[in-house]
Amino acid sequence: MFFEGSEKKAEIIIDAQQLSLLQDFNDDFWSKMVEQCQAKILSSVVNQSCRAFLLSESSLFVWQDRLVILTCGNTRLVNAVEYFVKQVPAAAILQVIYQRKNEYFAYAQPTNFIDDVKQLKRYTDGKAYRFGEMYSHHNYLFHSLHPYQAAKDDITYELLAYQISEDASEHLTREGLDVAEIREYFQFDKWLQGFELDDFAFEPFGYSLNAIKDDDYLTIHVTPQAHSSYVSFESSLNLIELAPTILQILNPVSFDIVTFNEMKFAASTEKFLPKHYILKDRVESDLDNGYKVNFANYLKPQNEVRQPRRLDLKGENYEL
Amino acid sequence: MFFEGSEKKAEIIIDAQQLSLLQDFNDDFWSKMVEQCQAKILSSVVNQSCRAFLLSESSLFVWQDRLVILTCGNTRLVNAVEYFVKQVPAAAILQVIYQRKNEYFAYAQPTNFIDDVKQLKRYTDGKAYRFGEMYSHHNYLFHSLHPYQAAKDDITYELLAYQISEDASEHLTREGLDVAEIREYFQFDKWLQGFELDDFAFEPFGYSLNAIKDDDYLTIHVTPQAHSSYVSFESSLNLIELAPTILQILNPVSFDIVTFNEMKFAASTEKFLPKHYILKDRVESDLDNGYKVNFANYLKPQNEVRQPRRLDLKGENYEL
Repeated sequence: MFFEGSEKKAEIIIDAQQLSLLQDFNDDFWSKMVEQCQAKILSSVVNQSCRAFLLSESSLFVWQDRLVILTCGNTRLVNAVEYFVKQVPAAAILQVIYQRKNEYFAYAQPTNFIDDVKQLKRYTDGKAYRFGEMYSHHNYLFHSLHPYQAAKDDITYELLAYQISEDASEHLTREGLDVAEIREYFQFDKWLQGFELDDFAFEPFGYSLNAIKDDDYLTIHVTPQAHSSYVSFESSLNLIELAPTILQILNPVSFDIVTFNEMKFAASTEKFLPKHYILKDRVESDLDNGYKVNFANYLKPQNEVRQPRRLDLKGENYEL
Repeated sequence: MFFEGSEKKAEIIIDAQQLSLLQDFNDDFWSKMVEQCQAKILSSVVNQSCRAFLLSESSLFVWQDRLVILTCGNTRLVNAVEYFVKQVPAAAILQVIYQRKNEYFAYAQPTNFIDDVKQLKRYTDGKAYRFGEMYSHHNYLFHSLHPYQAAKDDITYELLAYQISEDASEHLTREGLDVAEIREYFQFDKWLQGFELDDFAFEPFGYSLNAIKDDDYLTIHVTPQAHSSYVSFESSLNLIELAPTILQILNPVSFDIVTFNEMKFAASTEKFLPKHYILKDRVESDLDNGYKVNFANYLKPQNEVRQPRRLDLKGENYEL
């Protein structure tokens, strides 16, 4: 059995003069919205600026003027976006951003990025880009053509770790591992002080976390199985500065960093990223919506000769 | 519009005491076989040991005791394998090997490797492996459990080049480019002396070559479009020794080398491969059928900052 950890992500920004996503929409609305992509709400935490929902497949964050939703597996996130834009006056929508990274098991997906863009274009015209090579790690991004301009201090970081170390994979797939043990493994006490945590340990393994503190947020999703492991981080916290801690814990073979409005990408990655990872690919663009997007892929060359992975051909559900 | 250049490949070895693939099967048979995977024969060349068919989607080589077939695009090669094994007494089949590399556009494939293996297992039990990481370049291989042992001098090389240089891509997508110009571009006069060539330039672009000389063979398939370019070489010729010439012409960002029974893989790659490519992944195994299989992925780090690829959202057929 395999599980597609790679997320689809949508961000929708609305005009807070016309609507408040925190006051004008209740939990029933968000439940119905996430149902559109075959996910459901597991739990939530709230503070004065954010309502954060942990989903059966990733996360939904709602602020006064925007929402961010990430879903993994075979969910059709674009249906949730469509549901939202149909419930809200068109004039209130300032921006729609839709991202999709290359998938491990693309074959099993119900749609591809192009299908999703065609569906979005029924509601809003836009531009679309591929950051990164087709044959390697890449991230697709669509944004609407509204005149919206992002504030320069509206900064987001994504860190996507592939093929974590055998130790990390072994630890994170232990039977009966609970959230307290996973929190300790990630050393949250060292780097998430003061955050309110909402997390879930899935059966037989897998872990999701939402964390909020004032205006800051972090979400982590862990697909730990040895032969297709993937751990994603998305946050307002500077994940480039936090990368040494994260990479020391997970020791992945490869990782991507994607940032929105990190203006010192080159200097910051040069300063903080461990030198045994080499930069493989680097893409940058100033989008029409005011976001400077950076994408970079790093890897640790594997020079030692390895054995191939033997596939188990017994039973009905072979692993790839 | 996109085209999946990545090949599926099958090799079937039979008992030449019982059957001769050259004498007991006519062109009609091979036509019917390739029709099973929605390909057709374009042309062929013959010498005393081999009949080589150029297909609308790649190539079929037939020798006295074996066949090798490669098909790209959305073909279902496994159906051609099934057709063959149903026409031949089971006792005459000594070995079935089925390979499939990771695809650019896996989403558009009618089956995945596991589906194909399930279909093959109706006829022969086997073992299956993945060479290379799930999140990166990899090559799946299935082989049957017959007692066959490959001869040590039965050596095959594959060189798979990804994202060729802009110059090479521009040259190979020129309007009206003919086979003579492509032969010159690949400098075949320097390294294919004495080979009989059978090649085809597709519209609007794309190129396939079969070349035979005595017991030696080479096949090349070129998918040159700039944003998802891919060029594959398979041969009895030593493609590690030829790599400097090939890589100088195509200058790809990344390439894989896969070998069967190349016993000096480490020394030979160390000696011949240009040093500006770094070894990213290396897998080796001695299979039960007597083949030593090596897989290695190399890449040229891209440190310069690039622009993302803008996707054209006009019309019905967006490119990914």
